[in-house]
Amino acid sequence: MARPDLRRNDEMRRVKITTGYTMHAEGSVLIEVGNTRVLCNATVEDKVPPFLAGSGLGWVTAEYAMLPRATNTRSPRDISKLKLNGRSAEIQRLIGRSLRAVLDREVLGERQVIVDCDVIQADGGTRCASITGGYVALWLACRTLVERGIIHRVPLTGQVAAVSVGISDGEPILDLCYEEDSHAQADCNIVMTGTGDFVELQCTGEERPFTKEELTRLLALGRKGTAKLCREQRKAVGDAWNL
Amino acid sequence: MARPDLRRNDEMRRVKITTGYTMHAEGSVLIEVGNTRVLCNATVEDKVPPFLAGSGLGWVTAEYAMLPRATNTRSPRDISKLKLNGRSAEIQRLIGRSLRAVLDREVLGERQVIVDCDVIQADGGTRCASITGGYVALWLACRTLVERGIIHRVPLTGQVAAVSVGISDGEPILDLCYEEDSHAQADCNIVMTGTGDFVELQCTGEERPFTKEELTRLLALGRKGTAKLCREQRKAVGDAWNL
Amino acid sequence: MARPDLRRNDEMRRVKITTGYTMHAEGSVLIEVGNTRVLCNATVEDKVPPFLAGSGLGWVTAEYAMLPRATNTRSPRDISKLKLNGRSAEIQRLIGRSLRAVLDREVLGERQVIVDCDVIQADGGTRCASITGGYVALWLACRTLVERGIIHRVPLTGQVAAVSVGISDGEPILDLCYEEDSHAQADCNIVMTGTGDFVELQCTGEERPFTKEELTRLLALGRKGTAKLCREQRKAVGDAWNL
Amino acid sequence: MARPDLRRNDEMRRVKITTGYTMHAEGSVLIEVGNTRVLCNATVEDKVPPFLAGSGLGWVTAEYAMLPRATNTRSPRDISKLKLNGRSAEIQRLIGRSLRAVLDREVLGERQVIVDCDVIQADGGTRCASITGGYVALWLACRTLVERGIIHRVPLTGQVAAVSVGISDGEPILDLCYEEDSHAQADCNIVMTGTGDFVELQCTGEERPFTKEELTRLLALGRKGTAKLCREQRKAVGDAWNL
Amino acid sequence: MARPDLRRNDEMRRVKITTGYTMHAEGSVLIEVGNTRVLCNATVEDKVPPFLAGSGLGWVTAEYAMLPRATNTRSPRDISKLKLNGRSAEIQRLIGRSLRAVLDREVLGERQVIVDCDVIQADGGTRCASITGGYVALWLACRTLVERGIIHRVPLTGQVAAVSVGISDGEPILDLCYEEDSHAQADCNIVMTGTGDFVELQCTGEERPFTKEELTRLLALGRKGTAKLCREQRKAVGDAWNL
Amino acid sequence: MARPDLRRNDEMRRVKITTGYTMHAEGSVLIEVGNTRVLCNATVEDKVPPFLAGSGLGWVTAEYAMLPRATNTRSPRDISKLKLNGRSAEIQRLIGRSLRAVLDREVLGERQVIVDCDVIQADGGTRCASITGGYVALWLACRTLVERGIIHRVPLTGQVAAVSVGISDGEPILDLCYEEDSHAQADCNIVMTGTGDFVELQCTGEERPFTKEELTRLLALGRKGTAKLCREQRKAVGDAWNL
Repeated sequence: MARPDLRRNDEMRRVKITTGYTMHAEGSVLIEVGNTRVLCNATVEDKVPPFLAGSGLGWVTAEYAMLPRATNTRSPRDISKLKLNGRSAEIQRLIGRSLRAVLDREVLGERQVIVDCDVIQADGGTRCASITGGYVALWLACRTLVERGIIHRVPLTGQVAAVSVGISDGEPILDLCYEEDSHAQADCNIVMTGTGDFVELQCTGEERPFTKEELTRLLALGRKGTAKLCREQRKAVGDAWNL
Repeated sequence: MARPDLRRNDEMRRVKITTGYTMHAEGSVLIEVGNTRVLCNATVEDKVPPFLAGSGLGWVTAEYAMLPRATNTRSPRDISKLKLNGRSAEIQRLIGRSLRAVLDREVLGERQVIVDCDVIQADGGTRCASITGGYVALWLACRTLVERGIIHRVPLTGQVAAVSVGISDGEPILDLCYEEDSHAQADCNIVMTGTGDFVELQCTGEERPFTKEELTRLLALGRKGTAKLCREQRKAVGDAWNL
Repeated sequence: MARPDLRRNDEMRRVKITTGYTMHAEGSVLIEVGNTRVLCNATVEDKVPPFLAGSGLGWVTAEYAMLPRATNTRSPRDISKLKLNGRSAEIQRLIGRSLRAVLDREVLGERQVIVDCDVIQADGGTRCASITGGYVALWLACRTLVERGIIHRVPLTGQVAAVSVGISDGEPILDLCYEEDSHAQADCNIVMTGTGDFVELQCTGEERPFTKEELTRLLALGRKGTAKLCREQRKAVGDAWNL
Repeated sequence: MARPDLRRNDEMRRVKITTGYTMHAEGSVLIEVGNTRVLCNATVEDKVPPFLAGSGLGWVTAEYAMLPRATNTRSPRDISKLKLNGRSAEIQRLIGRSLRAVLDREVLGERQVIVDCDVIQADGGTRCASITGGYVALWLACRTLVERGIIHRVPLTGQVAAVSVGISDGEPILDLCYEEDSHAQADCNIVMTGTGDFVELQCTGEERPFTKEELTRLLALGRKGTAKLCREQRKAVGDAWNL
Repeated sequence: MARPDLRRNDEMRRVKITTGYTMHAEGSVLIEVGNTRVLCNATVEDKVPPFLAGSGLGWVTAEYAMLPRATNTRSPRDISKLKLNGRSAEIQRLIGRSLRAVLDREVLGERQVIVDCDVIQADGGTRCASITGGYVALWLACRTLVERGIIHRVPLTGQVAAVSVGISDGEPILDLCYEEDSHAQADCNIVMTGTGDFVELQCTGEERPFTKEELTRLLALGRKGTAKLCREQRKAVGDAWNL
Repeated sequence: MARPDLRRNDEMRRVKITTGYTMHAEGSVLIEVGNTRVLCNATVEDKVPPFLAGSGLGWVTAEYAMLPRATNTRSPRDISKLKLNGRSAEIQRLIGRSLRAVLDREVLGERQVIVDCDVIQADGGTRCASITGGYVALWLACRTLVERGIIHRVPLTGQVAAVSVGISDGEPILDLCYEEDSHAQADCNIVMTGTGDFVELQCTGEERPFTKEELTRLLALGRKGTAKLCREQRKAVGDAWNL
């Protein structure tokens, strides 16, 4: 059965990563994956969470939110309910863990980078776009620190990118748009390094459990997608790229 | 004394109003005034606030927020403090009042338009940009209702636009950027109709009171700025414009 | 058309300012303007907001609230909704800005005065009464500091008072009661110094925009009203008055 | 040892109950007990709590709060902490239970009276003053309902008043002011009917437990105090009094 | 009329106090009184509330909560409403006061014990069970401090236990289960020391006031119940018991 | 290297599932996995979330919380911070999704089961224990509905159980205790059906990414563990078991 935008099952949507999207953040990126658009701004702060005070080690954390009309139906702002949306809470923990997986906390030193991922427009895959774009924003913020002579090198041990894969009409497909996502039988978010190892893996059977064989096929698709995303990340940074 | 960007005292920054900026909202606008960028999305809902239930009358309300890194220093999200920022509360009430001033509540009928103004990047004048861009988003959402046959005409009795004016080094200036705003002796936000009448006027002496003569000069500047903004609004809508 | 209490259009309601109304506050005032009654208590604290720590400069801030049954219909307490009322947020920011306009922050030194304005009974003009009465409470608290030898003079550079004016049935009127306020075509809150300059000006067209000519007539009424209120402030303080 | 204001151990402070203190509430009372001043406003609402919907029975509830500067040191407002003060929570539950003890819920019918007790100035005994004054506000609100022909008689089966008693320097004393309260060895709040029965009794050993004999002496003082307060309640209402 | 479980009017339900119920807390107790089961965990912290900082004195505080399905109908968690339940607020203040009544704050030194009382299953009398069990948890936590050489003796001046008594069908009864509690004409929570003095007394007329004679009979029952509970407390601690 | 409790790498801790642990819930289970103890109570409610109203379909949701002293250091209650713990938010969403994976929503009909998972004592694996025990509580609640004639069969299409696996010192191990968990290089929570298919898979590289080969070995361990847990679930239910 054809995909809504006629892509092949192993084909990603168009990816566009714009650096320097806003002017205030130490690292600022707009990532577009098809119609999904996420603004990722990385801020460097000189204080760390209490459990790291005095340790000399750094930290990376993330916050994730959707603008009220990023989706087809308007979602009230969190503040109007006085509650952080449960889905946002789950996603921002995932983004933070993923980025910290390649962080050299000693090289960063006792400072914190906060990566704000704000979804301007949603069409599936916003958490994966946040990780992929957030990585570039983090890299840029780190390079700013290097350029300012505050740290001696970018404190990242590798690349991290994420893509969603799923099973639709029994077939594994790569990079689901919203329409596909809402009808998938299984849905995985795969976070991988530039060298093809796993950083985080979250797979959910939506209508039914999934088998080991299906998982194997999904992981292969995920590897293909994240490899492409890592290339896009390096391209976005351009000649400045190094790790 | 020269302005930071060498503008004349009665010169506005470059204004750009992009319609259809996001795909889900009934009316979507990105307004840029110099480096200030505000995303204005208008959402139509079929329910009204309790005090209007059963009245047959419509309502327009607004919400305003800054993305955490819209400014030079990161601001924590409201939800992290569980409190709506006092400044945001004040501003969104101003936006709502300003837009309602030209609303024909009977023609809109018993439905509500929520205008979300989210500041992507701030460099002074965000509340005025929100009113000016929010007006276009509201107009577009109304036209969507007309096109869908839900109402018979755009329920707006005129145009509304806003600009900031202030006194800097003793001289009245138009459309203050952040640097100017933070050193101004007086600061006014002037909301006017397309016919040059006042919708709302908020003037504050920052370091010292201001005189009646100064007020008179500020109001003249405001009229000039809002007239230009009204032209930009009509230009953004293009041939579809009518009221 | 006659006003509900048969006042002339440029006539204020009876004003009564009672000093020393409660016994604990450094400055305590009950202000009555017609049936509107606001308790203004000024508290001196030895700490300042974070952005002033170590600066040697002082600060004045205000909080505003209505008792639940100050109005015709009972309003739930903010705490029952876990949200500061948006109108209160807007008003308390206005009160704070107005009082700071005449504050000599160096003479006050690194301490803060909090002016609590609690509306006991509301009949229109509560924000203006809060500014006018709050000014006297602030003055009294400052004098208490002088009497205790903590500062050498009252750190205020002038007087501040506020009055509402509006357009009713096409005519400008002074000091609107609730009934007038709820039917006015325009509504201004005018905050002026004892010397007749503007501290803050907030004018809103309620049902329709207002013209420059109407504004001019409203400002003249405002000047008359605030001049009378400044006389009442000095009378309330009595022989101790000096600045 | 002499009491701060030289009262006898079994002597109450001056009590003053002013009815009709504010103009909007169905029942409004200012009660003063020495320097303690509490504004009690009773509001009638046509809806009852969910557990009574459709029962035909009425309800009385209470809310209690201190104005920020009712006390010697300013207390932040509940809303600034987003938490109802624990002490206020405890007290307003006590007030509500005490007033409901004499409520004829059938005669009141399916409506609710909310008694707001706001402490203008505190000098000990504010919860007891709230009960005593709140009772009069409730009575007045009920009479308003009778006068409007909504119910046929005041739905109260008797009077309720409250007084604090305590042990100071080993001696039982009546109606403690703040200074006495803060040094008492035991502290009781005694809520009684006009016929001398107990509605609620809350006794706390502050520095040490208290004995059965001490309790007996405290209860006798409480009976004396509440009897006087019941006389004051009737006097405040005047000729209209009936039950 | 017979009690639901056929007890005599002056007979308590079966009491079981299990020490060391969980492994992490400094003092951990499960108390069962009939079907009521409360887990009481005492935690020692090295910091005290601000008002005691630097005083060298210690503090004991308590928190009380019901698990959502401790009762017949599920109660939403406090966090889902963002409000501490008013009944919980009242109860945890009572538990804290009761335990502090026998605390030697100097011997404890500048540290705080927090006694968490979580109701696993409720069948009446949960606040009294919390006090009785919380006392044992507190004692155990203090002994842990002694064993670790941090303080030289258990800083408690006596025992504290609590029981509910009430009037049912006109007869005073001891230790009410939920069914009895919900139909009682009066309901008292009596907190007493091991030597039979009062720590706290809270008596409420539920449907009608109660008389002095009824109170006297209730207090006698309370003394009997708390004496038994004190024996159970000592038995639970076993040979280690000393004060 | 030996495990703290000398288990083999593929050996689970002792599992004990006690049914009917509390008396009020429709399904009540205490699950113990080593020192980890979680109380799982399933409540049936006759209303469903708004998005299912009128659909005839049922829903299962979960809430997860730790008692304050379930852990080595006391955690403040969520209500004291007015925020649902981010980790709890993430976990309760996982529990809900896992249980819904085997729910036949039509057979359940338009009612909701809420599964409350409260951690009494934590020693690693609390989310997996919550899923495994929560499943039994859900099954019991469903059977209660069958016994009451409300639905005709248990609306579950299979079993669900969960176990944690991880890499410690380079070796995959099954069912990590807290000490192991805090030093693992990778950590997976594997939720499987009784037939060995995947319901949800969450794998995180803690200090480093993990490889595909490591994942394969971890999944095999997970299958072994969940198979054992499914046997324990059936044993706990006993002869009543059927699906």
